[in-house]
Amino acid sequence: MQIYRAPIEDMMFQLAAFGYEDVAGLSRFEAFDLETLRMILEQTGALASDVLLACNRAGDEDGVKWDPATGAVKTARGFREAHRALAENGYYGLTADEAHGGGGAPYTLGTLVREILMSANKSLAMAPGLTGGLIEALEAHAAPELQTMYLPKLAAGEWTGTMCLTEPHAGTDLGLLTTRATPNDDGTYALTGTKIWITFGEHDLADNIIHLVLARLPDAPQGVKGISTFLVPKVLPDGTRNAIACSGLEHKMGIHGSPTCVMDLTGATGWLVGQPHRGMASMFTMMNAARLFVGVEGISLGEIAYQTALEFAKDRRQSRALDPRRSDPSAAADNILVHPDVRRMLLNARSTTEAMRGLAVLVSTNIDLAHHHPDEDARQRAEDLVALLTPVVKSYCTERGFANVSDAMQVCGGAGYTRDWSIEQYLRDMRIALIYEGTNHIQALDLVGRKLPMHDGRLFRTFVKEARAAVAAGRAHESTAGFADALDEALGHLVGATEQLAERAGRDREELGAVASNYLHLFGLVACAYSWVRQVAHAVATDAPNRATKLKTARFFFALVLPELHGVLGKLGAGAAPMMDFELDEL
Amino acid sequence: MQIYRAPIEDMMFQLAAFGYEDVAGLSRFEAFDLETLRMILEQTGALASDVLLACNRAGDEDGVKWDPATGAVKTARGFREAHRALAENGYYGLTADEAHGGGGAPYTLGTLVREILMSANKSLAMAPGLTGGLIEALEAHAAPELQTMYLPKLAAGEWTGTMCLTEPHAGTDLGLLTTRATPNDDGTYALTGTKIWITFGEHDLADNIIHLVLARLPDAPQGVKGISTFLVPKVLPDGTRNAIACSGLEHKMGIHGSPTCVMDLTGATGWLVGQPHRGMASMFTMMNAARLFVGVEGISLGEIAYQTALEFAKDRRQSRALDPRRSDPSAAADNILVHPDVRRMLLNARSTTEAMRGLAVLVSTNIDLAHHHPDEDARQRAEDLVALLTPVVKSYCTERGFANVSDAMQVCGGAGYTRDWSIEQYLRDMRIALIYEGTNHIQALDLVGRKLPMHDGRLFRTFVKEARAAVAAGRAHESTAGFADALDEALGHLVGATEQLAERAGRDREELGAVASNYLHLFGLVACAYSWVRQVAHAVATDAPNRATKLKTARFFFALVLPELHGVLGKLGAGAAPMMDFELDEL
Repeated sequence: MQIYRAPIEDMMFQLAAFGYEDVAGLSRFEAFDLETLRMILEQTGALASDVLLACNRAGDEDGVKWDPATGAVKTARGFREAHRALAENGYYGLTADEAHGGGGAPYTLGTLVREILMSANKSLAMAPGLTGGLIEALEAHAAPELQTMYLPKLAAGEWTGTMCLTEPHAGTDLGLLTTRATPNDDGTYALTGTKIWITFGEHDLADNIIHLVLARLPDAPQGVKGISTFLVPKVLPDGTRNAIACSGLEHKMGIHGSPTCVMDLTGATGWLVGQPHRGMASMFTMMNAARLFVGVEGISLGEIAYQTALEFAKDRRQSRALDPRRSDPSAAADNILVHPDVRRMLLNARSTTEAMRGLAVLVSTNIDLAHHHPDEDARQRAEDLVALLTPVVKSYCTERGFANVSDAMQVCGGAGYTRDWSIEQYLRDMRIALIYEGTNHIQALDLVGRKLPMHDGRLFRTFVKEARAAVAAGRAHESTAGFADALDEALGHLVGATEQLAERAGRDREELGAVASNYLHLFGLVACAYSWVRQVAHAVATDAPNRATKLKTARFFFALVLPELHGVLGKLGAGAAPMMDFELDEL
Repeated sequence: MQIYRAPIEDMMFQLAAFGYEDVAGLSRFEAFDLETLRMILEQTGALASDVLLACNRAGDEDGVKWDPATGAVKTARGFREAHRALAENGYYGLTADEAHGGGGAPYTLGTLVREILMSANKSLAMAPGLTGGLIEALEAHAAPELQTMYLPKLAAGEWTGTMCLTEPHAGTDLGLLTTRATPNDDGTYALTGTKIWITFGEHDLADNIIHLVLARLPDAPQGVKGISTFLVPKVLPDGTRNAIACSGLEHKMGIHGSPTCVMDLTGATGWLVGQPHRGMASMFTMMNAARLFVGVEGISLGEIAYQTALEFAKDRRQSRALDPRRSDPSAAADNILVHPDVRRMLLNARSTTEAMRGLAVLVSTNIDLAHHHPDEDARQRAEDLVALLTPVVKSYCTERGFANVSDAMQVCGGAGYTRDWSIEQYLRDMRIALIYEGTNHIQALDLVGRKLPMHDGRLFRTFVKEARAAVAAGRAHESTAGFADALDEALGHLVGATEQLAERAGRDREELGAVASNYLHLFGLVACAYSWVRQVAHAVATDAPNRATKLKTARFFFALVLPELHGVLGKLGAGAAPMMDFELDEL
């Protein structure tokens, strides 16, 4: 049984709470006011529940089939039709430029749409997800001829996109990659090498697949400063097949409906995207979006797992309420929602999912502002927040999302472990998000090693200023002042930990690596507390219809989730020695 | 690739550290000195690596097949042969009484053997596991004729056993069960009803399957005080087939090799075990052992996942060491074991697995002492520790075990998510342990609602006394005094939380339910700290060969795991209101 209703009301609330009006106020997005967004989100929710969810189980059961004779990959029952529905309704090009046939929608809408699609069918939603990332990279870095030739087809979902980074010996460490690109006489390049983990590298959904491939030119320096990016289509402009083919699939714990391909390039024709040896720029354009969206997966799967567990719980009766006043004497047992621990697990998921949805909207509105705000200071402030919070959202939301799906499973007891309620699929589908697009620890290193020191700490100061403004807003009302005080205290811990980190960083980079993951965890908790204070302050200030429930959910978060930060703080002081003092043969 | 070497040296160390000599000193166990245990554990390790591990993947891939026409269940490739090896080598009856054809071994040995078998093949190891539980229940409660007829066959592994508790509407709440037992003229009973989640309820490993079935007699009072237990064999003594049959299998996230059966009883012939309406006694004899052993599953799967991730890490090179002195200039990248976060994840698993192994040995030696010590005070002290710590071991070790397997997966990056390294199987196989044999929250309610108040708090005082003795022993040596101080502080927190709980319990039982899971988590952390202080005190006092490594591993635990207790303490004060104040339609 698969159950999902897009959380439209909460999305609309988050848009209002996190200042979407600033985005709607930009001339580029004047067609995208709040009511338009609601309409699109409702349509998306209907498509997700009716079409995507309907083949989500099939994707898990059928998986994808690779034909060794032809290298062709067949997707699961219903995937072709669902893909077509996504393409025809404009989801592949939703945020692409209108000049390239896109929908011209703000990033913020793209994020919420992504949340919905990922809830209903994570495997399939990766196809428009990657294609959107490729569109963004080509818009930013490709020559106009390439844009004209490829962007309209990609935006229409007639063709799909991939990013070909990883090689067997080069995963986290892209500097090791060896795929070679040799110039041809006509200005194209011949690419040779093997790429792995290529999502939707081969499939039967579309007529052409456009790969963005990282490779080295003959004169390339070693390491990441010698990487260039190339556009390599499966089918060449003259209609012939290019020398890139799928030579096998990975067998994974989850996302069975999404083909994870080994791609062999044997002199494949490619076109340079961007400058020689500057391929990391296009890679990061695609990757930064991907990181935010992978964080969103934790929201998506936490949400559908929560909804499923709640549906189960509403029906299930076991044992008597601990408080006899809640007991139902007309039945042989009470509904399990009378048990505090069942609610604890449900509210763990809900209170963090709503906090994280707020963060995703915050980052997304700031992406829109960073790209399109007329004022340079406003753009810079927005860029700071995006750069700082993207690794936090990627890691914290995926870790928490995984825990939330596990909590939802626990609510259902044995039933949660069976295929009947599908939570076990969501848990398997979720787990990869802690790994791909840069493992969660790589995000933590990005946060402590790059983002914190950047511009002499300006990014962090920008966040602290935002958070202090939220504290002040929260203190303005009696019903939210307690939350504001708790945020203020948590923020003080984060500032203290950040100062300690800065002091250590110069002294010992190994110590930085040792504390990075725990520091990111602390940041994630404080960011969620910040998200909650903004939400309750907005709910109270506007007397929103969900005001009472938001206050209760925030109260749960502050009482039963935020205290985790004391555990994390306790670990931060440990430094590197407890790990590094082991000799290799002691491990 | 599946990799496993039984951790014999650590097991031998734990036996010495946790006073196995007291067990070996009992006349019943004089044949089981430490060297005999080592020999048996080594043989078990060889059998596990050579035979059980060899079909562990097949169990996951083939699963079990049910034939609707006959109700027969076919197990995976290699399972019959592996079962036979277990049976012929005495593993089904290892701890059964010699009078019934058993091995007469101490429980402690049974626990360590179980850990090894579960690491190598959790699905198959459930068969001797359940059979051992049934043997124990029959030894304690069945009439001599039943014992004579069934125990030798069960102990030889010629027949296997099950426990039939759950019904579709009665899981956690056994009081709701409705299977009926009507007396026949010959002293037997006719049982009718449907049971679900019956592990190895039907299979092709053995000629007969002996079910312990919970049911109600016609005159039974309502609730759990009207439950009786019956022995219901698949094949009756006269060789005819009894009216109990498998009518379907569950489709589960993991343990695919283990059949989880729906069992229909349609007037099946059964024999009463124990007194009418007192079936919960035999159920709990079987269940208490099962709870300890389910806790051990967290140790087993954490161990094999750790070994696998370490093997992967030793081979994998990515990026450069943060500290250039650790760098290997002869290679293009450094081995990932130079990265502190890789070690952090490995040591999370290792430092808790070793702590929990110590706890499992502690509980097991005390089971042996509780059963067989000549002195009544010694028996009572041992019983107190077993009763108190069993729910802690069941819940904490399974939660931590699940986290440990997930950490091991993260070490391997994308490879960890594929079938190639099998950690994804271990994660799926592990997850059920948080649910079955009483969900982890049911354990927490048992701890706070039954075990803490029992005998006016005597059980808890017994534990505190043990822990204080460990503090004193730890303080006797300079190298362990810091750990002893940290345990003392943690113990102070636990004592404080326990006093608060006792004070609250009288006032508001709902609040007890609200904090139970977090209280158990706190207890688990403190128990692991206690385990570590006993281990390092022993290592130092005996100048054990692993002394240096044990001190380093303890240091990691105290620096990077134990601080979690501050997060848990922060949640304990929240009470029930943050969950219970939600109206139903707000959830």
